[in-house]
Amino acid sequence: MKARVFVTLKNGVLDPQGKAIGHALNGLGFSSVGDVRQGKVIDIDLHESDAGKARAALNEMCQKLLANTVIEKYEIELKA
Amino acid sequence: MKARVFVTLKNGVLDPQGKAIGHALNGLGFSSVGDVRQGKVIDIDLHESDAGKARAALNEMCQKLLANTVIEKYEIELKA
Repeated sequence: MKARVFVTLKNGVLDPQGKAIGHALNGLGFSSVGDVRQGKVIDIDLHESDAGKARAALNEMCQKLLANTVIEKYEIELKA
Repeated sequence: MKARVFVTLKNGVLDPQGKAIGHALNGLGFSSVGDVRQGKVIDIDLHESDAGKARAALNEMCQKLLANTVIEKYEIELKA
């Protein structure tokens, strides 16, 4: 089973990297670009066929290692 | 319109950061974790209501700034 985990800064936490990307895009002439936020995406191959167990394990991974839950939030997406 | 852009290393390009995450997860006892790849996710607020135009603009952004197309691939996801 493949999983995709998104780790992004919580709303309200300043994101200088996202701001820099937004400014650069505006500077390149993309005037329609508003707010930009940048985060991480982690693609994981899991040797686990049960979706519930996979989700529970991924949740624990995020809590323990992948996300700093003080300032970051995470989303888990399971594929096939 | 909100858009989400994923920028990840092409298959075959070595991803030491992903490898490190995989090792760390195995070390924490998550033995079901196989291959791990890490990439970037960029959430963009676009002042554009036409999906076709938005996708074209995002494609151009990726080519010009967001992705290094020699080693990275990108996916564009449009939301509402």
